[in-house]
Amino acid sequence: MFTVISLADKFHLFQEPWHPKIVGELNDSYVKLAKLKGEFVWHHHENEDELFLVIKGTLVIKLRDQELTIHAGEFVVIPKGVEHLPVAEEEVQVLLLEPKSTLNTGNVQNERTVEAEWI
Amino acid sequence: MFTVISLADKFHLFQEPWHPKIVGELNDSYVKLAKLKGEFVWHHHENEDELFLVIKGTLVIKLRDQELTIHAGEFVVIPKGVEHLPVAEEEVQVLLLEPKSTLNTGNVQNERTVEAEWI
Repeated sequence: MFTVISLADKFHLFQEPWHPKIVGELNDSYVKLAKLKGEFVWHHHENEDELFLVIKGTLVIKLRDQELTIHAGEFVVIPKGVEHLPVAEEEVQVLLLEPKSTLNTGNVQNERTVEAEWI
Repeated sequence: MFTVISLADKFHLFQEPWHPKIVGELNDSYVKLAKLKGEFVWHHHENEDELFLVIKGTLVIKLRDQELTIHAGEFVVIPKGVEHLPVAEEEVQVLLLEPKSTLNTGNVQNERTVEAEWI
């Protein structure tokens, strides 16, 4: 049996910002949902490109030489190796698509590092 | 320079149904947008799981033993090997995520087979 996944229903299941949740998998990747609020940490992913599709709110992703503003209904792909800092002035709901090997803080391991779990 | 991609802007660039357009790439996959209207063809993908995220409208995906109804803001993953038939009674706008090797008609090659192009 296959299940249709509602983004809104899944977003209702959690509140904590910066704790991505897994809601689907395909090929070698996970579909994750995350709520973002405030500033994250500068990091990059050694081997993984990462897609950010904004579902609600406005996400800023700072790069070392550019700043991206992503509104609901817009996405960006941050290629592997590119340092980035996500910033959400107000709460942002985002869909992430990234290889299963991806750690939320990339090359950095600190108190913001979390293991994504299925919901 | 990185570009923020607006789904609405990209959907304005084409009309023809069942002709997926490439709007992004990450890892070994493409992000594609498609407009669907009417009934497609039964097919499966030998090696590729495929994600359908409905942006607008209501998509029905018939499986051999189940029928999935996917509304805007919902997604399904159709795993490799699973026969499926997308049906859109009214126009549907959908975001697809699938490996670059994926052909729209999967194991079937006929007049509905098209090569996706970048927009």
